[in-house]
Amino acid sequence: MTNDGNISGKSPVIPQATMERLPRYLMQLYRFRVTGDINISSQSLGDSLGLKDTQIRKDLSYFGVFGKARYGYNIEFLIDALEKILGLTRRYDLAIVGAGNIGRALANYRGFESRDFRVKMIFDNNRQVIGQDIGGLIVQDISLLEEKLKDAAIDVAIVSVPEKAAYEVADKLVKAGIRAIYNFTAAELHQYEDVFIENANISFGIYKLAHHLSGHWPRKNK
Amino acid sequence: MTNDGNISGKSPVIPQATMERLPRYLMQLYRFRVTGDINISSQSLGDSLGLKDTQIRKDLSYFGVFGKARYGYNIEFLIDALEKILGLTRRYDLAIVGAGNIGRALANYRGFESRDFRVKMIFDNNRQVIGQDIGGLIVQDISLLEEKLKDAAIDVAIVSVPEKAAYEVADKLVKAGIRAIYNFTAAELHQYEDVFIENANISFGIYKLAHHLSGHWPRKNK
Repeated sequence: MTNDGNISGKSPVIPQATMERLPRYLMQLYRFRVTGDINISSQSLGDSLGLKDTQIRKDLSYFGVFGKARYGYNIEFLIDALEKILGLTRRYDLAIVGAGNIGRALANYRGFESRDFRVKMIFDNNRQVIGQDIGGLIVQDISLLEEKLKDAAIDVAIVSVPEKAAYEVADKLVKAGIRAIYNFTAAELHQYEDVFIENANISFGIYKLAHHLSGHWPRKNK
Repeated sequence: MTNDGNISGKSPVIPQATMERLPRYLMQLYRFRVTGDINISSQSLGDSLGLKDTQIRKDLSYFGVFGKARYGYNIEFLIDALEKILGLTRRYDLAIVGAGNIGRALANYRGFESRDFRVKMIFDNNRQVIGQDIGGLIVQDISLLEEKLKDAAIDVAIVSVPEKAAYEVADKLVKAGIRAIYNFTAAELHQYEDVFIENANISFGIYKLAHHLSGHWPRKNK
């Protein structure tokens, strides 16, 4: 996915790597806040994340967020700015499509709750799974997907069905008005206008590690 | 993670976004190969992935891989090149640490098998879980982690324990000689020299979608 604007109304291209780091900054700032600190320098934040202070200042400057000399950033202010940038100013309701291993794990994932993301529905096509209670939710029949979604204000649909089924599921989701899909399959679901797709292909992380381990690339310590 | 070299021996910086796209190219080429096609143009590959042909040619050129005018890329050659770039020329053995919801789902994840990634071990600290059979593997006592790993040639450790436990687990993994960690927790595990960390924080994908949905950024179709 590309990012093609910023909160100040201008439109520099925000690098993907910057966007990937912002949630890490925010999580780390939550941790610092708990300790009672008021301010944090880009140096300290960088050290805690294994990043250079210059990287942090550059990333935040894309959004017009600057620290003060000697004091660095006010932690509350920076948390507030990052929450606004990331859109974390309201609750987001999720629906999971596919109650297999991954879908079940996501339905029970505690990390969502702490961030104001709520799993509200879960669907499957397996007669033996429909009606089961998973994490407090009753698995619903996938044939009712469009109907059920139209009545609910679901923000994000998580797709955790087999790859071959993902295309039909995505079509139905988009028809039902879903504009954000978190895709846990290997399927390419990029063909929709005005729908945001976030791919979380579990194998791809191993590909990246394999690539590093394979030794084609210089090691960090060389 | 940064990428700081290439297979030809020179060292241009490969953009992170390029590295993220290579597995998608490879998966799509496998799909094209099944249809019996011999060659593929950057235009066709791009169309199938929702990317521009210029993007594909640029990404591949970082690795000295170029298509031929009129014919494009030979599919077999390009698959071979991408498998080499990604280090997918041998089997990779995985160990899962943490047999909770996510760990169980990963132990049963079929996408690994198809890619020559094998889950060989799974560990947990819960007495009621140790000894259970998950996806054909018996859950082992986490107190034996270092000992068991030293006897095994594990390439990648998957960390799927609670965030607070992740730091101690990572220390033990690194002491046992693990050089690649696939981190499914929110913990920051960047502090090791010469250890590759791939973060797969499940919440972060929702952050990115929330960020898009929040409307601070222009929509695709505006």
